[in-house]
Amino acid sequence: MLEKMFYPESVAVIGASADSRKLGHTVLKNIIDGGFKGRIYPINPKSGEILGLNAYQSILNVPDEIDLAVIIVPAKFVPGVMEDLGRKGVRAAIIITGGFREAGNEELENQVLEIAKKYGIRVVGPNCQGINNTHHQLCASWPLITLKGRIAIASQSGTVAAALADWSQDDGIGFSTFVSLGNKSDVDEVDIIEFFSEDENTAVIALYVEGVRDGRRFMDAAKMCRKPIVISKPGVTERGAKAVESHTKSMAGRDAVFEAACKQSGIIRAENLEELYDFAKAFAYLRPFKGERVLIVTSSGGAGILAIDVLESNGLRVFEADEELKAKLRDLVPAHAILDNPIDLTGDATAEMYLNVVKAAFDYADAFLLIFGDPIEGAADTVIETVKMADAAEKTVVVAFLGGAEVEKEEVAKMHSHGIPVFPTPERAARVLAALKRWGH
Amino acid sequence: MLEKMFYPESVAVIGASADSRKLGHTVLKNIIDGGFKGRIYPINPKSGEILGLNAYQSILNVPDEIDLAVIIVPAKFVPGVMEDLGRKGVRAAIIITGGFREAGNEELENQVLEIAKKYGIRVVGPNCQGINNTHHQLCASWPLITLKGRIAIASQSGTVAAALADWSQDDGIGFSTFVSLGNKSDVDEVDIIEFFSEDENTAVIALYVEGVRDGRRFMDAAKMCRKPIVISKPGVTERGAKAVESHTKSMAGRDAVFEAACKQSGIIRAENLEELYDFAKAFAYLRPFKGERVLIVTSSGGAGILAIDVLESNGLRVFEADEELKAKLRDLVPAHAILDNPIDLTGDATAEMYLNVVKAAFDYADAFLLIFGDPIEGAADTVIETVKMADAAEKTVVVAFLGGAEVEKEEVAKMHSHGIPVFPTPERAARVLAALKRWGH
Repeated sequence: MLEKMFYPESVAVIGASADSRKLGHTVLKNIIDGGFKGRIYPINPKSGEILGLNAYQSILNVPDEIDLAVIIVPAKFVPGVMEDLGRKGVRAAIIITGGFREAGNEELENQVLEIAKKYGIRVVGPNCQGINNTHHQLCASWPLITLKGRIAIASQSGTVAAALADWSQDDGIGFSTFVSLGNKSDVDEVDIIEFFSEDENTAVIALYVEGVRDGRRFMDAAKMCRKPIVISKPGVTERGAKAVESHTKSMAGRDAVFEAACKQSGIIRAENLEELYDFAKAFAYLRPFKGERVLIVTSSGGAGILAIDVLESNGLRVFEADEELKAKLRDLVPAHAILDNPIDLTGDATAEMYLNVVKAAFDYADAFLLIFGDPIEGAADTVIETVKMADAAEKTVVVAFLGGAEVEKEEVAKMHSHGIPVFPTPERAARVLAALKRWGH
Repeated sequence: MLEKMFYPESVAVIGASADSRKLGHTVLKNIIDGGFKGRIYPINPKSGEILGLNAYQSILNVPDEIDLAVIIVPAKFVPGVMEDLGRKGVRAAIIITGGFREAGNEELENQVLEIAKKYGIRVVGPNCQGINNTHHQLCASWPLITLKGRIAIASQSGTVAAALADWSQDDGIGFSTFVSLGNKSDVDEVDIIEFFSEDENTAVIALYVEGVRDGRRFMDAAKMCRKPIVISKPGVTERGAKAVESHTKSMAGRDAVFEAACKQSGIIRAENLEELYDFAKAFAYLRPFKGERVLIVTSSGGAGILAIDVLESNGLRVFEADEELKAKLRDLVPAHAILDNPIDLTGDATAEMYLNVVKAAFDYADAFLLIFGDPIEGAADTVIETVKMADAAEKTVVVAFLGGAEVEKEEVAKMHSHGIPVFPTPERAARVLAALKRWGH
């Protein structure tokens, strides 16, 4: 049903502008520069030519079928535009324009919604930052982002969505689709879950929502979803819930109820934005963790212990290495290495040691947490090899690379380019492993 | 007493090497390249010339007084070196060499310690990454870092210390001194607290310790300390405490006892490494928050609400804007701005609006949490102005800049260069404000 929204063959930009300071210019330009392969029609009452394309005075004048309309005209003109869409047979609209419910103009938003219903037009927005489906090369949003990834990001807050998008760019892992839900007048979290459950380019759905419209439908959709769902939802405190109401007129609802709903329907809840991103990144590339036994291999004893506390607090088992295992490892590591769990290779760790230890201890553990606490050259190659081995045996590998020096940055970039997520601290990596465990159950 | 350790006028590098692959080369080179203003003496049995300096066969041959010796010779030679130091009258030594207690050689470490006691030599290490006092241009460590800052970092884990140092470099705020405590055979957390309490270049002490040797002395030192102390201490879980024992042979002790000790002595405990850094960064530049009322000004409603949940969960009061305040603000913000608290300027926010809102609402709040959720040009200038105003009235300003795009990076760098800490998410900024409040009490 939302196929034409996210995979249109033709797009009209209503409110396209030749003035480069205007949003109607930016969005049109991003659709063009993003390499959209379908037909693009700028609509502007002054007609003429915009960014090298012939502009039409009205969508009704376009001699072609239009799958998707992106609307960036002042709020008061939106109902008229929607009527035009209806008559033209357009069935998907993104209303970027603000000035509706969020600004006290609930009536105007209802009017738009009624027209949408009358014609069967699905609406993203209003008051949103558009959508960007990297796999369809459709950047009906800003900034221009083209890197293809596996995470579908959908958010009631454009800024939160943009932050996740930024981080995914910095990491070089990208996203599949970015959806700014804005006022969520029509397309909501349930639609997103249902659509991206079937989207072949998406591996995980990352949601920021301030309220859920229909708890029952939401839970049903989540239960049916073939992809993991990670969610951040504020309004945990009374004061926060009240602010939610002011912000998006959503009802935050009782947090305990929402928490229980997540648990029942297999949704993983993130405690904060960084965690929302970490978990989405992990679930996009890793499998659920169904085992029990975690082995930590680290070049930093301290970093290993910080991870233990998080793992054990979350119910995971950092088993103690027995004499048999220690005997197997002794010749593979420096004499002063600590052969407990964590296996502490110390500052003398080499990339090769990590691989040797994982190989020797392979049958003892179901998951490996590899912590690189020093600029270890070749770390990426060793991790790539480890992951290959672990994948074949359905074991889990989570990697933390602590610090910001240049060697680290290169190795981390290499791992990301091979589809191996890397986390910046031992604690964040440990929380990821705990989340993979929750997902596995 | 540790003056000669951290502010020596002459340094001997024992185990200095002409071979650039050796640590004894790197450390000597870093002391030279770091711009150390005192006298430097390489000590190497082969004598000759190293890095342009005349090397001595033994420290006993140096025709000068030596304040500090940095030792990088194999473990078994360390007792002999210590005897030489004693006879030479050196009273401060950094033993970088590993292979002592952490490798099962407790006896050797005790032997070294006895010699130190006999001569009254203070020892940092063994098994450590050295020290770096940026203000004294003494980088007896690696990598070479020269950026001067206000945070004293001391850690039982070299990697943890290095991670904090890296982050401080990335942010361009630097540190005052970096101390890798290693096995902590002599100089420990209490010495660090006592020394840096009086160090004029240090504004805050950031500690990572796995165990505290003497709880009573530790609490007394913390209570007397003139600087805020932030601490991260693992071993919260039983399994974590056990790993601490294997790692540094420290006793983690019962976590509840440590937690209570921190509370009683005004130490702020961080939950994870990023928080240790965030809090240290905040305390280095901001004052304790003694008021009650927090006003959030944001360009992103969602980001504002995420902050509320954290603030309210931590006992801070995000008051609701009354009609009087709303009336004052109405003309200063876009028509569709939400004039509650958070004051949501929406995506149309400009840097000027933030300043105008803070000015108009100045008397209503004791702390301002400014959240920039979009690439807002001029944000830095507005924040610099806001901080100036707030400082004069002893109000607190905490800034979050969400996202990673280029505009953000420039503005954030500018704020940091003006001594204004910026945090990467609304939640982390809110936790910082809560920590400033705990510090204030």
